[in-house]
Amino acid sequence: MQDLSTLEDKTILTGDRPTGPLHLGHLAGTLQARVAPQDKNDVTILVADMQALTDNAGRAADVAANVREVVLDYIAAGIDPDRVTIVRQSDLPALSELTMLYMNLVTVPRLMRIPTIREEIAQRGFGDGTPAGFLCYPVSQAADITAFGADIVPAGADQAPLVEITGEIAGKVNRMAGRNVLVTPTLMQSNAPRLPGIDGAGKMSKSAGNAIALRDNPEEIRAAVMRMFTDPGHLKVSDPGKVEGNVVFTMLDAFDPDATAVEDLKHQYRAGGLGDMVLKRRLDGILQELLAPMRARREEAASDAGLVGHILEEGRKRAHMTTMETLGDVRRAFGLEGRPGRSAALTELVSLGEDCEAGKVHEGLVGAISASHTRFSA
Amino acid sequence: MQDLSTLEDKTILTGDRPTGPLHLGHLAGTLQARVAPQDKNDVTILVADMQALTDNAGRAADVAANVREVVLDYIAAGIDPDRVTIVRQSDLPALSELTMLYMNLVTVPRLMRIPTIREEIAQRGFGDGTPAGFLCYPVSQAADITAFGADIVPAGADQAPLVEITGEIAGKVNRMAGRNVLVTPTLMQSNAPRLPGIDGAGKMSKSAGNAIALRDNPEEIRAAVMRMFTDPGHLKVSDPGKVEGNVVFTMLDAFDPDATAVEDLKHQYRAGGLGDMVLKRRLDGILQELLAPMRARREEAASDAGLVGHILEEGRKRAHMTTMETLGDVRRAFGLEGRPGRSAALTELVSLGEDCEAGKVHEGLVGAISASHTRFSA
Repeated sequence: MQDLSTLEDKTILTGDRPTGPLHLGHLAGTLQARVAPQDKNDVTILVADMQALTDNAGRAADVAANVREVVLDYIAAGIDPDRVTIVRQSDLPALSELTMLYMNLVTVPRLMRIPTIREEIAQRGFGDGTPAGFLCYPVSQAADITAFGADIVPAGADQAPLVEITGEIAGKVNRMAGRNVLVTPTLMQSNAPRLPGIDGAGKMSKSAGNAIALRDNPEEIRAAVMRMFTDPGHLKVSDPGKVEGNVVFTMLDAFDPDATAVEDLKHQYRAGGLGDMVLKRRLDGILQELLAPMRARREEAASDAGLVGHILEEGRKRAHMTTMETLGDVRRAFGLEGRPGRSAALTELVSLGEDCEAGKVHEGLVGAISASHTRFSA
Repeated sequence: MQDLSTLEDKTILTGDRPTGPLHLGHLAGTLQARVAPQDKNDVTILVADMQALTDNAGRAADVAANVREVVLDYIAAGIDPDRVTIVRQSDLPALSELTMLYMNLVTVPRLMRIPTIREEIAQRGFGDGTPAGFLCYPVSQAADITAFGADIVPAGADQAPLVEITGEIAGKVNRMAGRNVLVTPTLMQSNAPRLPGIDGAGKMSKSAGNAIALRDNPEEIRAAVMRMFTDPGHLKVSDPGKVEGNVVFTMLDAFDPDATAVEDLKHQYRAGGLGDMVLKRRLDGILQELLAPMRARREEAASDAGLVGHILEEGRKRAHMTTMETLGDVRRAFGLEGRPGRSAALTELVSLGEDCEAGKVHEGLVGAISASHTRFSA
């Protein structure tokens, strides 16, 4: 990741699909990098449950349940919900409306040519059965990015074609509008390597069962480190060992604060005479130290039953207003009139239900709602 | 069209893409049939501007402008906006959200196999450039149909595969929900033949320049009838003429109230001795008589500058509530919580902006809106 800690006054959007608990791979990849810019920038983290459904419609209940876990993982990683907007994608109707409009500006072959989409379709083994929602998720992601007016999207290189298509859509909308209503985003590319799974067989992922989750307890962490793939040719302590492809060293590179010590260890390991257990104990100690405060923050947050709901509701209120304003601009570019533009403020009332019920508006609201119900039952 | 006048207590959805004025082809195809059931059924007519954009993104302003024309055409054709809900598709955010969810339940090859879509892609000459929105419009249409809980969809045979895919989606959602939250619709197929254009070269369409629009004035109607394709081999009045493919006879079959007289005329024409001008004058008289009261109703409606806006706003209020309730059910089937379910009534407040401002709620609303603005500018 480029140095996000130097950014100021940027609008930054990142997010995760809530398909499982966040793990060390996420931490090394983007989570740590989201903490740095949260003071001096407008940072939004989208819990992309609608995007998760594009390849998980069959396990929709899991996706919904994972939203809470992912928010707790954010808090664990040090993201401060008072400074960052954490919002659930399905809470923002403007994103669906923007997606529908943008889908008219992108062709099917353009989507099919995106390398990331082609790889993901192959990986998921959809075969002939790629859901329409999956093919179109880049359009949905363009809606996410532009809805918030994000100028910086921190993500891996695989996201470059998706940020590019977002720029194309923004350009088309701006030409239709005759002015720049949408921001063309810039990818801030991660230079962190993708963390392998503990089995060394691929990237770390919960579904592959090769992950260390942020929420794992000390015993789970230790057991995972002890199972970690090293060098299968390194049979005796005295044998020379290989560092490349040795997951323990990859983890030390990623998380050991003492890079010089790690280089010394690599030297000893290659020469022979350094046992895997020594390395694994060192890594276990580092990971325990890294994850213990995260687990503590997570447990504290989880013990407050209403906290996640409150965070998401606060995020929704803020993000609803922003995204509805963008939708209003885009609708006007398409020649569509009024509704969101006119009623963005009124729509915001939906967000204020609680406030209203507490205040003097209560009586009038109840009257208005009853009147509307009467009208429909008549 | 099967006899819609016998229907009772059905929920019926029909609609048109606002890409140009409605014409005799629409009148023969579905417009007349929509008038009959409007008393004893719950009829909604959707002005499908979002669907029109799926192949008209480049002329979005025309689509927006045509919405008003199409509503005036409905009134012209005898549809009573007090008994029928006339609503603009882009006014209903629930339809976009439903489409996004349904897109996860339909595969890309399933959409590409729909014969109607394949034909339309070929007709439009998209080549490799089919917009994603166009490929997915059957999903959007399934959202329309199910959002209103329509059990009857009156349409041509070309719509059968689209109603079928709607049934598939409804079945999947119902299985996810564990109960029947969505209605499986039935196509009520038109048996009216597709009306040819006045040039006899294809079906009547404004873009082909071969249509007689409901709003055409007497001179335009007469001129179109006089240009109408008959039998190019029928050079002299005394020559035998062909009835098949003769547009004048097709029009007489569709609109002449005296079917026996038309059969007699066909007989004479085939035998020879009946001139085209005699037939064209007859047809002109019939069309003038048919369209004059429609034009009068249209002109009266058009002279009331606020009428179309009022009709669409009334339609929106009713349809917003219905479609948000369906969205709430579908969201729950996908494991998504609360928002539309919880706040359907509050969202309805958006519809009540005017009422609110008039009433005692006003002061509180203004306060709430100011508070929310302050929060975002802070």
